[in-house]
Amino acid sequence: MAIPTVAEYVIDRLADLGIRHVFGVPGDFAFPVDDAVEASDRLTWIGCSNELNAAYAADGYGRINGAAILSTTFNVGAAAALAGVMGCKAERVPVFHIVGAPSTRLTRSRRHMHHSYGDGNLDQFRGYNEVSACASAYLTPQNAVPEMERVIFEALSQRMPVYIQIAEDYALMPVVGAPVRGVPLAEAQTFSSNAEELDGAMAAILARLGKAKSPVVLPAYTIARYGLQKELEAFLAATGIPFATPAMSKGLLFESHPLYLGDYNGEMSQDDVRKIVEGADLVLDIGGVVYCDPDTGAFSAHIESSKVITIRPDHVEIGALAETGGRGDASYGPVHMKDILAALTRQAPKFKTPSFSRPAPIPAAGASDNKVTDTSFFSQLQQFIEPGDTLVADTGTGDLGASAVRLPDGAQFQHAALWGCIGWGTAAILGVGLADPSRRVVLVQGDGAHQLTANQIGTIGHYGLNPIILLRNNGVFGIEEIVMGNSDPAKIKNYDRLPLWQYHKLPEAMGCRDWFCVSVETNAELDAALKKARTLPGASYIEVQLGSEKLLPALPPEALERLYQVKAPKTAS
Amino acid sequence: MAIPTVAEYVIDRLADLGIRHVFGVPGDFAFPVDDAVEASDRLTWIGCSNELNAAYAADGYGRINGAAILSTTFNVGAAAALAGVMGCKAERVPVFHIVGAPSTRLTRSRRHMHHSYGDGNLDQFRGYNEVSACASAYLTPQNAVPEMERVIFEALSQRMPVYIQIAEDYALMPVVGAPVRGVPLAEAQTFSSNAEELDGAMAAILARLGKAKSPVVLPAYTIARYGLQKELEAFLAATGIPFATPAMSKGLLFESHPLYLGDYNGEMSQDDVRKIVEGADLVLDIGGVVYCDPDTGAFSAHIESSKVITIRPDHVEIGALAETGGRGDASYGPVHMKDILAALTRQAPKFKTPSFSRPAPIPAAGASDNKVTDTSFFSQLQQFIEPGDTLVADTGTGDLGASAVRLPDGAQFQHAALWGCIGWGTAAILGVGLADPSRRVVLVQGDGAHQLTANQIGTIGHYGLNPIILLRNNGVFGIEEIVMGNSDPAKIKNYDRLPLWQYHKLPEAMGCRDWFCVSVETNAELDAALKKARTLPGASYIEVQLGSEKLLPALPPEALERLYQVKAPKTAS
Repeated sequence: MAIPTVAEYVIDRLADLGIRHVFGVPGDFAFPVDDAVEASDRLTWIGCSNELNAAYAADGYGRINGAAILSTTFNVGAAAALAGVMGCKAERVPVFHIVGAPSTRLTRSRRHMHHSYGDGNLDQFRGYNEVSACASAYLTPQNAVPEMERVIFEALSQRMPVYIQIAEDYALMPVVGAPVRGVPLAEAQTFSSNAEELDGAMAAILARLGKAKSPVVLPAYTIARYGLQKELEAFLAATGIPFATPAMSKGLLFESHPLYLGDYNGEMSQDDVRKIVEGADLVLDIGGVVYCDPDTGAFSAHIESSKVITIRPDHVEIGALAETGGRGDASYGPVHMKDILAALTRQAPKFKTPSFSRPAPIPAAGASDNKVTDTSFFSQLQQFIEPGDTLVADTGTGDLGASAVRLPDGAQFQHAALWGCIGWGTAAILGVGLADPSRRVVLVQGDGAHQLTANQIGTIGHYGLNPIILLRNNGVFGIEEIVMGNSDPAKIKNYDRLPLWQYHKLPEAMGCRDWFCVSVETNAELDAALKKARTLPGASYIEVQLGSEKLLPALPPEALERLYQVKAPKTAS
Repeated sequence: MAIPTVAEYVIDRLADLGIRHVFGVPGDFAFPVDDAVEASDRLTWIGCSNELNAAYAADGYGRINGAAILSTTFNVGAAAALAGVMGCKAERVPVFHIVGAPSTRLTRSRRHMHHSYGDGNLDQFRGYNEVSACASAYLTPQNAVPEMERVIFEALSQRMPVYIQIAEDYALMPVVGAPVRGVPLAEAQTFSSNAEELDGAMAAILARLGKAKSPVVLPAYTIARYGLQKELEAFLAATGIPFATPAMSKGLLFESHPLYLGDYNGEMSQDDVRKIVEGADLVLDIGGVVYCDPDTGAFSAHIESSKVITIRPDHVEIGALAETGGRGDASYGPVHMKDILAALTRQAPKFKTPSFSRPAPIPAAGASDNKVTDTSFFSQLQQFIEPGDTLVADTGTGDLGASAVRLPDGAQFQHAALWGCIGWGTAAILGVGLADPSRRVVLVQGDGAHQLTANQIGTIGHYGLNPIILLRNNGVFGIEEIVMGNSDPAKIKNYDRLPLWQYHKLPEAMGCRDWFCVSVETNAELDAALKKARTLPGASYIEVQLGSEKLLPALPPEALERLYQVKAPKTAS
């Protein structure tokens, strides 16, 4: 067997993990990587409309598949992808970002190369991509084999992106040393628990559980990232402790689960949920909830640090709520949350589940001849979602509304609530769809956000995906008006008013063939379009005309001040 | 008069310079900045389809107007713009990048805010934007006035972007100290010459000029950035020294100038030009030519360091060619090139201009019934360009061809040859057009690159600009095949094959009203479309079907090896 080049080895080693697609934009300096992908019979090149869109697609893919590959060229390409890779770090998606760089001969000779500042320095951005990665490697033929093991371990242990740079000359040289044949993602080694620390953590948790009368579980989104849903379910079944999901964890378990209280979102939670969560004498945060504004009703959560046990992916904290930055009573690690869940399932006491009302689906709303409103839109969405769907909601009013949809068992949900990058949805569904073609992707996308990444529609069509895209056209950046406290259409800022596109004509212009594209205004039209889309095997693009008079309610002043910590919402001038 | 807030002051101070537009994407944390723009009667908000496109638009605007403003929100917004702002640094365009950040109260309280990594650190990217800027300021009410003077000075002295971050609470507080009323750009102070150093530099240059028999001038693109075209012309007229333009300087002076030799591009130059430049006994590099591959025929320039005098914006080097990294005989500074040009115009000897053949326009080509080829396309472009046009060429085969067009007097030319970011053109013309509405913008854009930034078309239509867009549709990333040495359509890499869009339908889908949009295949159709576009006051979008069999000639293997410093163009496997 021929010894692989560095580029071939990198591609081959990542394919071992069970990654089947590479998202990227080709470019000089990266040709050896691009060629290695093209030559691979295990990986398929997915050329994206630009680097940011490629990063978002990798994000979507990595959430479902467990990991993803992103390929760009150096400087112009890597920098254009950066915001998307940073999002993967925030949302904890392992993405292997492979960047083709100039040959070391070029770098040493200090050439004034294109794609650089033309000052002879071809290595001046060495550090800056690392802000988006949990580990970085600059490969050589000599270090490629061990470095790949290191960054794969880090990416999978931390569930975060890693940055892999390969100079073009090195990319074409054979690796030194014995290539590693890797195992699939699910079998890959990540960090492991220290036995003593695990015992200590268990003793501390069991002591607290032993005294608790009304515990509650807040499962974090990381449960999904680490693929520990079954372990969580086993623990819940064994203990009978009810759970509520912060926004980032929506859809983690079936929402018909008998222990599912509903969404916990601070003062914006339903009363029942809030009372049980905030009244609990022990809060088990499993996975490390991010107490961000989307998870806490704009920082209105009232949970006392001393009541909280936080089981993070790699350590346990007792009596410390991360939000406060305060240290708690004790901390144990390295301890893998998988080991804690398994041990707790065996050893934790059984609790009497309190009674609570089930979270209700969005009720029917809107007469059929009426124009679609936000209320009737989400009501129809509630009716529409089926078990085989993956509902993807882009940041904005679409996410606010879609997060209230009760998911039928089997339906999945994806959003980027923490990083909150508008436009992510349209670009991400390329990856979501390719990662699991057996599911139907339903995208809820706002018009303002859509304009940022609409060019990805052409890519989605090119690769033959079949999403159902629901484009909410109200002519404004609606979410921005909400978070500046405005619900009066007459007072919309000019900078929040959008160019008015004819969105439903985009797919044809971008070469999508045989898509069902339509613009609807009334509830009956939306209903008919949704029904038709469901019968079609191909993609649908439904533009829903909401009209800008349909702003959602603004956040009240006190919530805004709590959220942004700015006293005066408007300046005197 | 009320004391302005920090946000108001920043906007007002920049408006003093004569900047009339702000390119950006609105967002929370940046609302005080957005509001200040909306309230200003001197600045107009130009909402762009995304942050990268906004940065490119600011780039285009800054080239014409002398400086530009870019407004984004922090992290997600600033990072998404980064690649474009880095391009402004490479191409030396002063862009004031204003970033709205979370309030200092939020930062101090270590909130898990959206648009962050959710780890309580809202200031972890403090350094990373600085890679794209020549200076950065983190404004407070106390430092806003002096800091703005500092960054304005740096931006205008270095003709590079600066980064200005304003926390939301600070943005709404009144500035401390007396606001500065600034002067227009052209009158603004930049660095000044040290008298002794200027004398020393002049003595050294005049000594060399005194011995020279066949000097030549290579003017850099920075002449245009510093607005010194007239000073350069006066110097040329006084000395009779001929000049040749590297690619980055194309269009710097009228191409009918009697001293204009043509383009200098190493071995890819016309023989006449190459002989005079490389045979010169003194090369006056005025402005600091970047000896990048686009300026040197893929590093095939043969200019001896010892023959070169480099008059950089702020210093002079004798006998040092920057490309080699070697130090020369002497270096003088701070010395402003404007002062050097003025002194040389007064004191330099007059030379006998050598005879040379005028650079020829692209000849007519292509029978009218034939399909458009690359050759006939650029031939028609040559005929089409008029004195009032600004020809913008995006990176790729479009730039290669457009750079060969002889510009009629008065026509201007813009490209991003050094940074080489594909897609720049479509986004940049928004700024180019707004900076000088009296000119007609003609964009030559390739299909591959267009897909990266096509969403800016909607913005261009929204603001009523009237470019003539020539979209070259050949279905592939043509430039990439050229720089990997392939000219055989049968051997095009799959990753260079594009989704096939119906480009001419994009403007309508993106809401552009009354655009003339057409797809053409034959030379006669292209000719008719161009003629019609010229008669219309509004915008035109002409999709030119080239077919992928029409690849331009590839670079020969020896040029590729010289360019990329990679021995084997393809790996054995």
